[in-house]
Amino acid sequence: MNTAIILAGGVGSRMGADRPKQFLMVQDKPIISYCFDIFQNHDEIDKIVVVVNEKWQDFVEEYAKKYGVTKICGYAPAGETRQHSIYNGLKCIDKNAHDTDIVIVHDAARPLVSNQIISDCIKGAKECDGAMPVISVKDTVYQSADGMQIDRLLKRSELFAGQAPESFDFKKYYKIHNEVSDDEIALTAGSSEIAYRHGMKIRMVKGSERNLKITTVEDLETFETILKGVN
Amino acid sequence: MNTAIILAGGVGSRMGADRPKQFLMVQDKPIISYCFDIFQNHDEIDKIVVVVNEKWQDFVEEYAKKYGVTKICGYAPAGETRQHSIYNGLKCIDKNAHDTDIVIVHDAARPLVSNQIISDCIKGAKECDGAMPVISVKDTVYQSADGMQIDRLLKRSELFAGQAPESFDFKKYYKIHNEVSDDEIALTAGSSEIAYRHGMKIRMVKGSERNLKITTVEDLETFETILKGVN
Repeated sequence: MNTAIILAGGVGSRMGADRPKQFLMVQDKPIISYCFDIFQNHDEIDKIVVVVNEKWQDFVEEYAKKYGVTKICGYAPAGETRQHSIYNGLKCIDKNAHDTDIVIVHDAARPLVSNQIISDCIKGAKECDGAMPVISVKDTVYQSADGMQIDRLLKRSELFAGQAPESFDFKKYYKIHNEVSDDEIALTAGSSEIAYRHGMKIRMVKGSERNLKITTVEDLETFETILKGVN
Repeated sequence: MNTAIILAGGVGSRMGADRPKQFLMVQDKPIISYCFDIFQNHDEIDKIVVVVNEKWQDFVEEYAKKYGVTKICGYAPAGETRQHSIYNGLKCIDKNAHDTDIVIVHDAARPLVSNQIISDCIKGAKECDGAMPVISVKDTVYQSADGMQIDRLLKRSELFAGQAPESFDFKKYYKIHNEVSDDEIALTAGSSEIAYRHGMKIRMVKGSERNLKITTVEDLETFETILKGVN
């Protein structure tokens, strides 16, 4: 069984809109619904768990119904941090989990993920312990411990920008969350981080520039432009 | 004396245009001329050295004359790598250099650098050994030595994306270039790298998202949009 956790718990909006970005309407359809469509239509995805702030759950359910998202098997409450939200999603899966289950963690605000990336992530989690899509880093990245003077230039060929979805062997990933401290969960900056830190091997798969996370007005405009090109 | 080296030696164009990006015309004016304007009008810049492929020198001279760029004191040939080009520019300055001289290395394809950034770089080079503008890194950056599996997540608070211009104590910076091997120059990936590797202290100053390097068609469109807003 492959279950997608769709993270829609974020409350902020850098865009100054009246709602979190994943619920903004684009062509009369909320961004999260574009994301649902992809997972609903993907052959290898069996179930979807939605992590969402309680006050937005009715909204999500309404649009899930409207667009025929039948794979949703549960809702989990948003946590204090992104990783807490993931943990809440994992708990929601746990009731019916099997040893070969895979979990795929995705952001509702990344509505342009391709079927190929999802398939590659599932394959990676089966063959390794997990997988994440990455793209190359365009910046010349310097490291500075004190934020004042440069310590070193990082080797660009060794740097990769992480995207979502991140996929994991469910049992191993969930076990880690049950064993570590709440502080460790809170301090996790990337959902693969807690996995490889505890010995899981995370494969990198080919991401895409197009698989952007909508966080700024410019990102939203890019999404709208791409949509117009598709339709 | 503060001398700017304007790097215009690049020959490629990811944009598939008929010429290197720094010579593309925007509102009937080549991109490099927008860059010249800023350095020409900056009170703390005394001279400009242009590093350019010989076949484009007439073009540059013509437009420098047209837009009244009087600070240009010399032309240096483009080198095999960016750092070789910088070295060629440094040699062009050497003839008249004093102990307190500062060199400011900028890319012709960054026509939106602010006066403030240039001033901060000059101040940094006087108080430290050099300075470079940086902006925060937005990506979640992972490191992988083999390009297959993730080794670690880098601490975002310690990462900085380098921009131009980079400023240096001329004597110290030039001395390094005269002493290291040609291979070391060739392998230099950032112009501050060779400086701090040989003991120069490089201060980070506040860069700007707006100070973009024009490399793609999207960047060019952004530049055009900003220009329209300015005029």
